[in-house]
Amino acid sequence: MNITVINGPNINFLGMREKNIYGVKTYEELCKFIREEASKLGVDVSIYQENSEGGIISIIQKAYGITDGIVINPGAYTHYSYAIYDAIKSVEINTIEVHLSNIYKREEFRHKSVIAPACIGQISGFGFYGYKYAMEALIDCN
Amino acid sequence: MNITVINGPNINFLGMREKNIYGVKTYEELCKFIREEASKLGVDVSIYQENSEGGIISIIQKAYGITDGIVINPGAYTHYSYAIYDAIKSVEINTIEVHLSNIYKREEFRHKSVIAPACIGQISGFGFYGYKYAMEALIDCN
Amino acid sequence: MNITVINGPNINFLGMREKNIYGVKTYEELCKFIREEASKLGVDVSIYQENSEGGIISIIQKAYGITDGIVINPGAYTHYSYAIYDAIKSVEINTIEVHLSNIYKREEFRHKSVIAPACIGQISGFGFYGYKYAMEALIDCN
Amino acid sequence: MNITVINGPNINFLGMREKNIYGVKTYEELCKFIREEASKLGVDVSIYQENSEGGIISIIQKAYGITDGIVINPGAYTHYSYAIYDAIKSVEINTIEVHLSNIYKREEFRHKSVIAPACIGQISGFGFYGYKYAMEALIDCN
Amino acid sequence: MNITVINGPNINFLGMREKNIYGVKTYEELCKFIREEASKLGVDVSIYQENSEGGIISIIQKAYGITDGIVINPGAYTHYSYAIYDAIKSVEINTIEVHLSNIYKREEFRHKSVIAPACIGQISGFGFYGYKYAMEALIDCN
Amino acid sequence: MNITVINGPNINFLGMREKNIYGVKTYEELCKFIREEASKLGVDVSIYQENSEGGIISIIQKAYGITDGIVINPGAYTHYSYAIYDAIKSVEINTIEVHLSNIYKREEFRHKSVIAPACIGQISGFGFYGYKYAMEALIDCN
Amino acid sequence: MNITVINGPNINFLGMREKNIYGVKTYEELCKFIREEASKLGVDVSIYQENSEGGIISIIQKAYGITDGIVINPGAYTHYSYAIYDAIKSVEINTIEVHLSNIYKREEFRHKSVIAPACIGQISGFGFYGYKYAMEALIDCN
Amino acid sequence: MNITVINGPNINFLGMREKNIYGVKTYEELCKFIREEASKLGVDVSIYQENSEGGIISIIQKAYGITDGIVINPGAYTHYSYAIYDAIKSVEINTIEVHLSNIYKREEFRHKSVIAPACIGQISGFGFYGYKYAMEALIDCN
Amino acid sequence: MNITVINGPNINFLGMREKNIYGVKTYEELCKFIREEASKLGVDVSIYQENSEGGIISIIQKAYGITDGIVINPGAYTHYSYAIYDAIKSVEINTIEVHLSNIYKREEFRHKSVIAPACIGQISGFGFYGYKYAMEALIDCN
Amino acid sequence: MNITVINGPNINFLGMREKNIYGVKTYEELCKFIREEASKLGVDVSIYQENSEGGIISIIQKAYGITDGIVINPGAYTHYSYAIYDAIKSVEINTIEVHLSNIYKREEFRHKSVIAPACIGQISGFGFYGYKYAMEALIDCN
Amino acid sequence: MNITVINGPNINFLGMREKNIYGVKTYEELCKFIREEASKLGVDVSIYQENSEGGIISIIQKAYGITDGIVINPGAYTHYSYAIYDAIKSVEINTIEVHLSNIYKREEFRHKSVIAPACIGQISGFGFYGYKYAMEALIDCN
Amino acid sequence: MNITVINGPNINFLGMREKNIYGVKTYEELCKFIREEASKLGVDVSIYQENSEGGIISIIQKAYGITDGIVINPGAYTHYSYAIYDAIKSVEINTIEVHLSNIYKREEFRHKSVIAPACIGQISGFGFYGYKYAMEALIDCN
Repeated sequence: MNITVINGPNINFLGMREKNIYGVKTYEELCKFIREEASKLGVDVSIYQENSEGGIISIIQKAYGITDGIVINPGAYTHYSYAIYDAIKSVEINTIEVHLSNIYKREEFRHKSVIAPACIGQISGFGFYGYKYAMEALIDCN
Repeated sequence: MNITVINGPNINFLGMREKNIYGVKTYEELCKFIREEASKLGVDVSIYQENSEGGIISIIQKAYGITDGIVINPGAYTHYSYAIYDAIKSVEINTIEVHLSNIYKREEFRHKSVIAPACIGQISGFGFYGYKYAMEALIDCN
Repeated sequence: MNITVINGPNINFLGMREKNIYGVKTYEELCKFIREEASKLGVDVSIYQENSEGGIISIIQKAYGITDGIVINPGAYTHYSYAIYDAIKSVEINTIEVHLSNIYKREEFRHKSVIAPACIGQISGFGFYGYKYAMEALIDCN
Repeated sequence: MNITVINGPNINFLGMREKNIYGVKTYEELCKFIREEASKLGVDVSIYQENSEGGIISIIQKAYGITDGIVINPGAYTHYSYAIYDAIKSVEINTIEVHLSNIYKREEFRHKSVIAPACIGQISGFGFYGYKYAMEALIDCN
Repeated sequence: MNITVINGPNINFLGMREKNIYGVKTYEELCKFIREEASKLGVDVSIYQENSEGGIISIIQKAYGITDGIVINPGAYTHYSYAIYDAIKSVEINTIEVHLSNIYKREEFRHKSVIAPACIGQISGFGFYGYKYAMEALIDCN
Repeated sequence: MNITVINGPNINFLGMREKNIYGVKTYEELCKFIREEASKLGVDVSIYQENSEGGIISIIQKAYGITDGIVINPGAYTHYSYAIYDAIKSVEINTIEVHLSNIYKREEFRHKSVIAPACIGQISGFGFYGYKYAMEALIDCN
Repeated sequence: MNITVINGPNINFLGMREKNIYGVKTYEELCKFIREEASKLGVDVSIYQENSEGGIISIIQKAYGITDGIVINPGAYTHYSYAIYDAIKSVEINTIEVHLSNIYKREEFRHKSVIAPACIGQISGFGFYGYKYAMEALIDCN
Repeated sequence: MNITVINGPNINFLGMREKNIYGVKTYEELCKFIREEASKLGVDVSIYQENSEGGIISIIQKAYGITDGIVINPGAYTHYSYAIYDAIKSVEINTIEVHLSNIYKREEFRHKSVIAPACIGQISGFGFYGYKYAMEALIDCN
Repeated sequence: MNITVINGPNINFLGMREKNIYGVKTYEELCKFIREEASKLGVDVSIYQENSEGGIISIIQKAYGITDGIVINPGAYTHYSYAIYDAIKSVEINTIEVHLSNIYKREEFRHKSVIAPACIGQISGFGFYGYKYAMEALIDCN
Repeated sequence: MNITVINGPNINFLGMREKNIYGVKTYEELCKFIREEASKLGVDVSIYQENSEGGIISIIQKAYGITDGIVINPGAYTHYSYAIYDAIKSVEINTIEVHLSNIYKREEFRHKSVIAPACIGQISGFGFYGYKYAMEALIDCN
Repeated sequence: MNITVINGPNINFLGMREKNIYGVKTYEELCKFIREEASKLGVDVSIYQENSEGGIISIIQKAYGITDGIVINPGAYTHYSYAIYDAIKSVEINTIEVHLSNIYKREEFRHKSVIAPACIGQISGFGFYGYKYAMEALIDCN
Repeated sequence: MNITVINGPNINFLGMREKNIYGVKTYEELCKFIREEASKLGVDVSIYQENSEGGIISIIQKAYGITDGIVINPGAYTHYSYAIYDAIKSVEINTIEVHLSNIYKREEFRHKSVIAPACIGQISGFGFYGYKYAMEALIDCN
């Protein structure tokens, strides 16, 4: 099984960014965690980080016909990028939305995901572990 | 580790209810699944189903001092029960909100959870598996 | 034919309660009226009054496999109980929503029914007679 | 007893129009049904169909001093015609609002009736039978 | 000077209609009042009453090139008829909106006029006298 | 008959202020116009201009027991001063709201008057003449 | 091929009406343009202008079984006439909505069409040419 | 004089629950305080704590004919329980709404009470003392 | 202990003003009541009545360093004076908001207090007695 | 004449994407169609597909001084990209907005175009043909 | 050059008021800072502090014909005083709105300025320095 | 001191774009102005112009650890780019938001900045000079 993990804008600043919310672990540690968990689950994983909305769409499109599932943390695009929503619907690949923090505990604008309706499901609030559950879910719900 | 699983109104009608949304597996099968997964994870689990808002609050209160974590699927109360929100905050037990279906793909009124801000996180859309990930998360995030 | 009539919160205070709106006839008189009309229509009727949201859900669930139709006056729960809405959808029994007073003539909050979309239809404003028409409708629309 | 039945815009296209919602019976069949039920109830009935908002108001005004009750299905005018609302209030004739389909199961804009507050009550979702119950109600609530 | 007075839906029921709001004087008395005041002011007046939105538009269009000013009481159309708003803008005749009752003291929906922005001004709450001031204003503001 | 005219904030800048909206005539000319029209109508008139909300309330209170009617142009306070609304209701003096410009043709915030429900009626859009009609109306509607 | 063109309220005042928005060409010139373009496309065309909402509905209903397609410019009814929306759905004739001006550049209330969801598509902003493209589209999309 | 005190959901967790908001004193201390103050005021007091909305309604109904006044702290039900609002109106017993914390300083959803319009008055923000003032008020306003 | 009581706009018209809401007792009687209750409680009290928003702010500022607590009835300013809200926060004196009538039973605009979040608490609906409880509360909550 | 056609995000997935909405024809077929129609109309056409919002803006800017008209299908950016709206206004090139599907028949968020007010007009719902009409319109409205 | 600086309600409590937001420097220090910066810029400055909305309007009016520019910090009036907005428009003096704190970081109600549209520009968040930049801007933008 | 200036979408079209709003000076002149003012203030300045949201985020991220302050004019992204808001919070560099025109005088959608809460402050309406004040503020508020 082949999984594509897409991390949206500013997630590369983990560990440097608002540590009270996101913790002290860096983006490199996140990538390492994902790779280790993928390995335990016996899946191949490709990880992307991309600040651009259009760039994320292009990664999703390139995954078409290649990947078996997508794990996406769209960062702030979660809340307004109908273009990413369309991209996920276009490729018809099983996709799971993940958030490091519990978006329902934060600013009002973060309570709404325009992307969730295009996904199998959403996992929010478990830090790095969310990526693990998302990969499990891609296997379980296949 | 001791986990309390609380299933809200109408979840006991699984397998009988709106099968196009919830599938054909029954509530008994859900309970069996949860117990098996709990067993694999090495945790003790107590499962409750309750149609009454006040009844759910009382289950949460009784868990105080006894359980190490709560997995709650509040059913339709998710969308308006500030009293359950208060109950979770009162007992200060790690709690995870689970939904069988992806609530963001359904009626408008199901897109908002008033309970999520009182929880560690939320898992939505993975059927029975959501309970598994929630129990894992209670262990991982402890 | 077997019909279940469910009266929600405060309807047992008919005749004592806000008489300018609900009239002077008591809840006992309402029950008598319903039984007499049911008898005329040749249907068996079971009547429940319940103040608790969860209690109403449980009555609906117990009706599953037993009753041929439900007449429900959900009282104030009409306006916010998505859990009762779910319960009606779960049991897939023909259900008709009845209101004694014309809810569109009263406070703003009473103008919206969250339960109506789960029912065959709604009857509002005809006092006791609404229950008669609802029972007729369960027969006519069967 | 003399009853005026007023059918608003597009109801003359019953049986031709959106059959999945309104069924295959034609407007002529509806008129026949109303006449037969009126006959059973021992009331005289005059039936009008009118596409124009102003035309409906004029029918209501002409009924003044002549009819004992009005059954009105205002079609789409239900949702915005405050002029019909005013007309009903002006003539002070007992009026009942009827809808063939359950308006609460359909598009958002159909969930609100601006006319209901001028009526004794509202009946929605019972197809042709709604007219029968409305005529009964005009008798019962007289 | 030639003035066209247009009375919208239900105004012909003055004196019969909701007397606590509109008083006991009839529509004929209103017409007589307007003609007498017009005579005092030395203006020719044509008075129309029309229940239909399209009919009101046609009266406005027919006034084009003939009348020097319009006094309009659009009744309930005040609150939603953008078509009448357009008609007034189309003919570019000085127009004044009049209401018998103070629309700001009544139901919420009556607080908004979609027609007022197409008029010179609005007069509300002075019963018959509003027509007198409107005719004066057509003279004064010419 | 004794009439109090109250002009709210910035009306003293007439003729200097936004001439495209309010014209070139000065506040002094307005006062002269009001006095002349009052004289023609045979009424005594006292004119106040006041920038302060509290000051306007005090003028209204002082008018209690002395004046027979109030003509008020509350300027921008029209749109938010519930305190002036309360003051008019407190003194129970017949009051008429006047606006020089047609408030429904201007910025959105000017479309709503919180004061109108405390008045007999409202006159908007006729420049100086509005004060004349308001004084007439105080006589006519007495 | 037989096409019905329906022009709503006030469109007959083209060339007289708000020339800065609608230009100086008259309604007769519009009809001539439509007929010439229809002739070029080899289709028969019937053109109606109607100020009344009910009248437009009746034209739509009369087209049933006779016309192959409708081009409608509903004028201001675009923004609130759910009755016209219903009429188009009732007759199930391919219908295209046309606007002379770009409705998205004008007043807020013109930005929403309640009729568009009943049509194949919408064309807005191209003056007379919009009717040409609409007729082409009825041919192309047949 | 006989007073019924009703404490809603989660109030039994006082002293354990969110101490930064509610303080360290326990529910038992609250009951003791109420009894002592009642004793000083010379009134009999019955205290209930109930997590269930329906349960609260039943307590209110049982108080009918027995108690002279109700002091109610509806907890989170304050913000959405129209059923409790109805219950208070049904029994027509003088009722006072009390909140331990100042609900206007907390989450947005707590700023609105749907129950207050059924009560004599509301007291919010004075901790235990609120119950004392409420009992005083039941005596003073009798 | 030294308490400042501030009464906002129109409260000086008590007994003259809308007696069905505020009763027949005059403002002088209110002042007398407050002084007597203050005397019973052993506190010094200074009472102000002020129609002007800025004047109320100045009274609050002058109380700085002098008074131990403020009881404020802001009248209609309650609903929009963020400037008074700021003033209370600036002086950091314990302040209690009082309303004679139950503001939640009245017009929609009175249901929201912008001042309450700056106060210890709010007391609404108990007539003169509200001032007594407020003074008690300043003592109790000190 | 030189026309620039810009296709926004995900339009390159035509024929692969949600075929029930967009049909089975591919993006290459769309490009071929546009080129053939352009050729028939005798215009030069340059076609771009771009997933990135910034990329679309850059294409618009590069068209400045080179192209005579723009046909843009902004995909999901239609609904929130004020930056593209600004870009069109900046270059002051005649621009027409095109949508393959009827955006008014789809999800609520697609009913609003923030870009339309910067364009000459909008064409929605005619599949590939919309591009043809748009090119015609650039010629006709020149 | 002659500049008028107007400080609205509560700004005189700087240094005493909410120091975590506004800092420890007093209002006197602010005045000193403004005078020194004015001196450096070679402009005459008059500084006013005023708690009353009407008072601020009067200061603005008195500045008419005397001052070359206004720097205004309207305090809480920023968010609702359309009367001050009108005053600035009336006098047609270049005006700049200044806020000590970043109003977009604070309570929701502070995010909106009703005064800004009457000003050249707005400066928010730089403490005392905002007044310096505002005076510079009055010079630069003259 | 090292300052990064970031100009968002379409700002490179200054002098070509909507000159009635933005004036005739070109983007090159803006850059020159910024460099000259930076030089006067003794700071190093790097200026970027970028149409892409993701590109702006990347510039902000690259500034991390290198620059002492950011001056950003986010163009239309101001109103919806929560991703840029997140980027500014991530890097924790002092940032000031600048707008050439007074955004509060323009279209409704421009009145809200989602970026302002991540900045020290905002400067709007002073053309090129805004950049000067922003650089001053970075020095003054350091």
